[in-house]
Amino acid sequence: MSLLKRIPLFVLRLLALGATVSATAIMITSRDTADVLSMKFEAKFSNSPTFKYFVIVNAIASGYTLILLFFPAKSSCGHFILVLDLIIALLLDSSISACLAIGQVGKKGNSHAGWLPICGQVPKFCDHITGALISGFVAAIIYFLILLYSLHNLMNLFTISQD
Amino acid sequence: MSLLKRIPLFVLRLLALGATVSATAIMITSRDTADVLSMKFEAKFSNSPTFKYFVIVNAIASGYTLILLFFPAKSSCGHFILVLDLIIALLLDSSISACLAIGQVGKKGNSHAGWLPICGQVPKFCDHITGALISGFVAAIIYFLILLYSLHNLMNLFTISQD
Repeated sequence: MSLLKRIPLFVLRLLALGATVSATAIMITSRDTADVLSMKFEAKFSNSPTFKYFVIVNAIASGYTLILLFFPAKSSCGHFILVLDLIIALLLDSSISACLAIGQVGKKGNSHAGWLPICGQVPKFCDHITGALISGFVAAIIYFLILLYSLHNLMNLFTISQD
Repeated sequence: MSLLKRIPLFVLRLLALGATVSATAIMITSRDTADVLSMKFEAKFSNSPTFKYFVIVNAIASGYTLILLFFPAKSSCGHFILVLDLIIALLLDSSISACLAIGQVGKKGNSHAGWLPICGQVPKFCDHITGALISGFVAAIIYFLILLYSLHNLMNLFTISQD
């Protein structure tokens, strides 16, 4: 891959790194306490396996992106990197969707299941979760763009080979 | 793309169609009732926006796969189809992750948020959800394989162009 084609990829990966690191940091620091019926109630990310999964996925994506930024792979590994990018995109997509589903119950509750919303009691916690989800969503969009850009490069080569 | 290369893709799409149609059907038919404290409680998929999202995504994936099975696209559309396959894979991945997160709360509850598990009261409903999730998971894996196979074909062409 030429240097000119690497620059947009480098910029996209830099943005993705910022987004995944922010998502991890915002999620880890989400914490709020509330007194409900004289019981102290503390909300933190580690109370839910879904939020833990979100942190793990975003930490993995941060590490992976960091490695690729500073140790750019040889062109011969390009296809392998494309498959790894695809797996990271799927993992990010999965972590956001899972957290969004739990966040929706946290915000609106589910009267049928008898699950009450908790965001009224712990608004700071919910704001942090929302922030982490926005960062995670940005990271997923950037990884989708990275995939499209890599595919676009592959396709260009494919078109040239057909001429 | 040659006919020989189309056959594995056709088989994969046929399997994906079976999986997405099963996932949609099993989720739609999930229903159970329970009497809790002399209150009648009915569990059905439409009680949760997450399960509705699962049904919509699997229905879209079924329709898309059906169209591609019976109206195979021209080779010139191959790249466009690859991007659509990627979007379908991301949507399936997202719908399963979201349902898995809600299913986990339904099965285990979340004591910190005060959400009680409901699977003890409506076991039939939970079995259906589990079945739908397994089908959805199979569909997502097949779409991942479709993506890998399509990329593999593109890469082969790419390698030839480098010789």
